[in-house]
Amino acid sequence: MARLWDKGIPLDERILRFTAGEDHRLDARLVPYDVRASIAHARMLETRGLLSAENCAAICAGLEALAAGHAAGEWAIELDDEDVHGALERRLIEKIGAAGGRVHLGRSRNDQVLAALRLYLKDAVGGIAQITARVVDSLAALADKQGQIRLPGYTHMQPAMPSSVALWARGFAAELADDRAGLLAAVRRADLNPLGSAAGYGALGLDLDREHTRVALGFAAVQEPVTAVQLSRGKAEASVIFELALLVGDLGRLASDLILFYTDEYAFVSLPDEMTTGSSIMPQKRNPDVFELVRSAPATIQGALMESLAITAKLTSGYHRDLQRLKAPLFRSIDLAEDCAAIMAHALRGVQFRAENIELGDELYAAERANELVVKEGLPFRDAYRKIAAALAKKK
Amino acid sequence: MARLWDKGIPLDERILRFTAGEDHRLDARLVPYDVRASIAHARMLETRGLLSAENCAAICAGLEALAAGHAAGEWAIELDDEDVHGALERRLIEKIGAAGGRVHLGRSRNDQVLAALRLYLKDAVGGIAQITARVVDSLAALADKQGQIRLPGYTHMQPAMPSSVALWARGFAAELADDRAGLLAAVRRADLNPLGSAAGYGALGLDLDREHTRVALGFAAVQEPVTAVQLSRGKAEASVIFELALLVGDLGRLASDLILFYTDEYAFVSLPDEMTTGSSIMPQKRNPDVFELVRSAPATIQGALMESLAITAKLTSGYHRDLQRLKAPLFRSIDLAEDCAAIMAHALRGVQFRAENIELGDELYAAERANELVVKEGLPFRDAYRKIAAALAKKK
Amino acid sequence: MARLWDKGIPLDERILRFTAGEDHRLDARLVPYDVRASIAHARMLETRGLLSAENCAAICAGLEALAAGHAAGEWAIELDDEDVHGALERRLIEKIGAAGGRVHLGRSRNDQVLAALRLYLKDAVGGIAQITARVVDSLAALADKQGQIRLPGYTHMQPAMPSSVALWARGFAAELADDRAGLLAAVRRADLNPLGSAAGYGALGLDLDREHTRVALGFAAVQEPVTAVQLSRGKAEASVIFELALLVGDLGRLASDLILFYTDEYAFVSLPDEMTTGSSIMPQKRNPDVFELVRSAPATIQGALMESLAITAKLTSGYHRDLQRLKAPLFRSIDLAEDCAAIMAHALRGVQFRAENIELGDELYAAERANELVVKEGLPFRDAYRKIAAALAKKK
Amino acid sequence: MARLWDKGIPLDERILRFTAGEDHRLDARLVPYDVRASIAHARMLETRGLLSAENCAAICAGLEALAAGHAAGEWAIELDDEDVHGALERRLIEKIGAAGGRVHLGRSRNDQVLAALRLYLKDAVGGIAQITARVVDSLAALADKQGQIRLPGYTHMQPAMPSSVALWARGFAAELADDRAGLLAAVRRADLNPLGSAAGYGALGLDLDREHTRVALGFAAVQEPVTAVQLSRGKAEASVIFELALLVGDLGRLASDLILFYTDEYAFVSLPDEMTTGSSIMPQKRNPDVFELVRSAPATIQGALMESLAITAKLTSGYHRDLQRLKAPLFRSIDLAEDCAAIMAHALRGVQFRAENIELGDELYAAERANELVVKEGLPFRDAYRKIAAALAKKK
Repeated sequence: MARLWDKGIPLDERILRFTAGEDHRLDARLVPYDVRASIAHARMLETRGLLSAENCAAICAGLEALAAGHAAGEWAIELDDEDVHGALERRLIEKIGAAGGRVHLGRSRNDQVLAALRLYLKDAVGGIAQITARVVDSLAALADKQGQIRLPGYTHMQPAMPSSVALWARGFAAELADDRAGLLAAVRRADLNPLGSAAGYGALGLDLDREHTRVALGFAAVQEPVTAVQLSRGKAEASVIFELALLVGDLGRLASDLILFYTDEYAFVSLPDEMTTGSSIMPQKRNPDVFELVRSAPATIQGALMESLAITAKLTSGYHRDLQRLKAPLFRSIDLAEDCAAIMAHALRGVQFRAENIELGDELYAAERANELVVKEGLPFRDAYRKIAAALAKKK
Repeated sequence: MARLWDKGIPLDERILRFTAGEDHRLDARLVPYDVRASIAHARMLETRGLLSAENCAAICAGLEALAAGHAAGEWAIELDDEDVHGALERRLIEKIGAAGGRVHLGRSRNDQVLAALRLYLKDAVGGIAQITARVVDSLAALADKQGQIRLPGYTHMQPAMPSSVALWARGFAAELADDRAGLLAAVRRADLNPLGSAAGYGALGLDLDREHTRVALGFAAVQEPVTAVQLSRGKAEASVIFELALLVGDLGRLASDLILFYTDEYAFVSLPDEMTTGSSIMPQKRNPDVFELVRSAPATIQGALMESLAITAKLTSGYHRDLQRLKAPLFRSIDLAEDCAAIMAHALRGVQFRAENIELGDELYAAERANELVVKEGLPFRDAYRKIAAALAKKK
Repeated sequence: MARLWDKGIPLDERILRFTAGEDHRLDARLVPYDVRASIAHARMLETRGLLSAENCAAICAGLEALAAGHAAGEWAIELDDEDVHGALERRLIEKIGAAGGRVHLGRSRNDQVLAALRLYLKDAVGGIAQITARVVDSLAALADKQGQIRLPGYTHMQPAMPSSVALWARGFAAELADDRAGLLAAVRRADLNPLGSAAGYGALGLDLDREHTRVALGFAAVQEPVTAVQLSRGKAEASVIFELALLVGDLGRLASDLILFYTDEYAFVSLPDEMTTGSSIMPQKRNPDVFELVRSAPATIQGALMESLAITAKLTSGYHRDLQRLKAPLFRSIDLAEDCAAIMAHALRGVQFRAENIELGDELYAAERANELVVKEGLPFRDAYRKIAAALAKKK
Repeated sequence: MARLWDKGIPLDERILRFTAGEDHRLDARLVPYDVRASIAHARMLETRGLLSAENCAAICAGLEALAAGHAAGEWAIELDDEDVHGALERRLIEKIGAAGGRVHLGRSRNDQVLAALRLYLKDAVGGIAQITARVVDSLAALADKQGQIRLPGYTHMQPAMPSSVALWARGFAAELADDRAGLLAAVRRADLNPLGSAAGYGALGLDLDREHTRVALGFAAVQEPVTAVQLSRGKAEASVIFELALLVGDLGRLASDLILFYTDEYAFVSLPDEMTTGSSIMPQKRNPDVFELVRSAPATIQGALMESLAITAKLTSGYHRDLQRLKAPLFRSIDLAEDCAAIMAHALRGVQFRAENIELGDELYAAERANELVVKEGLPFRDAYRKIAAALAKKK
């Protein structure tokens, strides 16, 4: 796209480009969800006698055809459409005539975009939850295969107690399962039907059936009162991004461990060649780029979290165009989390612990032996410890 | 405190000051929780035969006396204690002799601090949830008292549709109730018993009963495996801070509305004198400082959220001293959220809408009338709207 | 792009996609800069006798042809190229044969990417500085045209003192000029020649002339020692993003003022129709979407700032692949700042203050009159003020 | 302090506590600066004939006595004073009578707090710059003492090229010197005289001499126009916090290296006992807590940076009470940066590299030898590299 400050573009064209922003690109993923929500709205209008059966059928068929065409790559949202809603509205009217405009009765873009976004959000979260389960599976497989290999348990990055590959892998698996649970719970804020709130103050003069669209779209509840709908914008988005920050945060820490274990000095793990990357000037090198990129991925999601919280901060109530900016950090976070979890689910299957390089010094067992002495001889822990430590010192 | 770079302080003293940081001040609030957790641990040790009944009784009585003394202001944590755990350990041994040291069997500061923190977190969240319910009540009272007053419903800060004080107040009440629900749900990550995980690899050589302390302390589950305990550090904290960011975010937007409504140009609300602040050079002025400070409070909590996420980012697994830094942003967020919610619960009771200053233009009803026309005459919405708009234009 | 978790993609292909990330798209803007830096490097190699005159000429001509072809849209970086460097290297060798590989002597992608990025950064900052100067000009034009119109000077959003359109516009102009100065100063960290540092430890065994490339590329200094080069990565980026956050922050506050002044209740300004946006269901409305999108733009840049700082945090020294992630937040910030400044420079020309709607109450002059009384009669300020205030009260 | 929601506190007392916030504690450090600025203002008033010589002398002497008393611990700012300005005003009037009030002519708390803050900021930055220079010195001393020890130069945490302690230490020294330069440059935004702007619209009716106070206080320029003064609030603060984030970010990365080098697996460095911390249950351990706390310190400063940027975001022009919140993140960042730099300056003197544990494999020299081959035999780099690599492979 020519940048906005290029000469010779008339003002209203500049304004259109600036206000449309990236929506025509970002909204591609919303097409099927906007279609679903519009169909649910049309059918509700029909049950209320606000849309003829004929018009309703034409609208639904038209929208389904548009969704199929979009999925098949036959059309894309254009800058002049501004967004997914404009794109579908224009094309529907081209396709079925003026009746295509009747689906907008009792609806505003404000509730329309929320309906599509929330349906998308529920799907996207479900998808990432599935991929996260695969990371958990990969860790469990590693624990099953190599779990008996002993590892030093570190505190302060210093060897502290005996641990094992099983304990290591299962610790991460537990946290990733927790992340998955958090992510699924975060859907709560997206699981409310916004339809019927129109621009944020309801569809006055029309007797819409908000429960009807709720059931059709599978939302847990109708969002009430109508003024809460726009006020809540950003909270569902931020909740999901936050949980993604924890998920990718845990993946990043897992990556940190693996990068450390893969150093020459530790050499606790090997990685298959197809998972590492060569150097342009040092061909002997095999670098763990995959894990480095996962390690730094939380930075991007933390940034997106700040971005989403800052967008709505201090805004007075009611819809503001500012809210449009919420989509970019949300989609950026979802895509990145998805990619990181997917690549880790696979990459973990290539990790091999090298038992031959992992040594646990006697001192790691000192606390355990002191504990045993306490149990057997009833010594206070610190006395028992002193005795063990002295024995260790003598052996050296 | 003399700053660290003052001359003449020996190195180890400087290191102590630097590493202890603010803990001796921050930890004051943890005293009762650390005492509760220590008593639970002592009683579990007794049931396992790892502590004599006599020692256990002395330890429990001693700890309870210390908690009472601390609450009564008889002692405070000192810099040399380093933290709450050091302070209690030293004083307990001074009080009941060497037996005081026996409570540390099978425990490390790593699981001890987590136990105290999580008990505190559950309490603190419960407290803020209660105060939030009071804000909801204040909004409901406002809706009851002045709800019938009509307000313009704004989009883009432009009058759009008719609304009312009831719709306005209940929209915020709904979101604050949602924030409260989110906050209570966030406790999930703090509701796990860390005791028995010791430094992060379990208390090898001892047969501890983690279920016993779980029941005694009211945790929902024992956290498994032991390696997950330290790995999870920061996630419960960040989850609570995140929900506080949403809560205070909504309070901040409520404050933004009130500041706007209190301007001379809107003059939609009046505030009692005792809620506003005078100016040092313009005595006629009555400023809404309370609401301004609430409006900017989310900034502090968003900063604390970033801080808490950044502390654990990229850390390898196992305990690191870095984790100590999590307390400051957590406590800062909790105190601020508590203060903001408490002041809003009160301040809202002073807000009076001034019906005489609030006008709704005819054009706000245009959409409603167009909707009615659609229903009665079956016109497409846009045709109906054009008709209404033309009629409005004539009247002007 | 098919998402990474699609079935049926072999592991190494997934790894390539994941590690290449968005680079093939992001790097498009770096093509001319990488070409410039490569040509400078080639010529330096020639002066050192490390590249024949013939090879050097072929390399330079080939690179220039590639840059021209890229600018003309004849080719684009492909996923398989991984990044701009891979794309140019492959195409250069295709074009001029094996000699194309000789330009990489004494160079690594680590210093190569930095050279291109820094050259780009200097250019981009210069461009935004120019656009910012145009915003300043628009404000000055507004002050010239309507500056004499009086405005209430607000504190706490309450009328406090007399002000004017000139004071209002010139206050913002001064801050934007300050932002521009800050931005130009931030270039300092990008103004260092990284070439010759190779992978971060110098080009051992070669006698490169770092001063030669410095002069050719217009860097202020050679960055020394070589180990500082990779350690500094991210600091120049963050410095520029920070200054953009201040710049766009000021634009956002300017937008906030204009949105407020454009409300029905203030009605201090009018905006031309081509700058406002209509509503899908309330055609009477003209919304200031442009300013709303500028108001929330700082959120995106603040997020990018956090992202960039978090990427390098805690990394040990030496190059890490994590650093690749710095490009996205940098480019996102630059593009957004550019767009916001450009649109504001234009939009401000459409702003008309409506003197007829702006009233300044007598109480705004109270402080001034009290000051005059102090001067004339030598009263203490507070006594003078009381006298004025009493007189004002009587008049009412 | 009793929390705000304690029962039985009357509303106006609650409001006072909430609005005063932490100011009475935070402002302690501003006492000497507020005194200096007030004295400069008083003297300017005298030169303009707005204050008698007698009053001026009494005010200046009184303020100096108050500053001395505060430094000696004789008094502290109390909650009822609200802030440093209230505390000094009340005490000055108690001390010298009503004349104490005359210093406020032509001044508002809005310009008063900025004058004190900027003077403080300039001092604080100067102090941290000095301490940073000491860290640079410590690194230089290390390079002098042990610089000849060879180190592997890492990329991707994999050994890549030969490096040395000198190159390692001097790389960090260069970046810290750059941080110091950035910090000193950031003072620019604090180096403007706000006095005379009063509440933000000037002292109408008085002919103040802003140049007089500028010279007296050593500001680089008078800030013009008066409306820019409050608009600029937060930018100087954020600029300093940003530079501190870079400084502490570099210290944190230095700490990361040292923690890694101090692991058992690397064992590249030893640390003196008085710099490490023992474990409560594993007495054999000596943990590098100091470096861990420095590693995570950037998190706190990044959070403070977000906080400071978010406070002013979207605010309309003119003073708002929100700005009060800027002090806490600023002071928090300054204190932490000061402590981190001071402790690193000292701790680095205890770091000993253990040459006996550091090995550089032959493969680290491959690139160098290939380079030499290129020079001697004119081979293309990749061919030379292949030859060297083959020779290396044979040796193994």
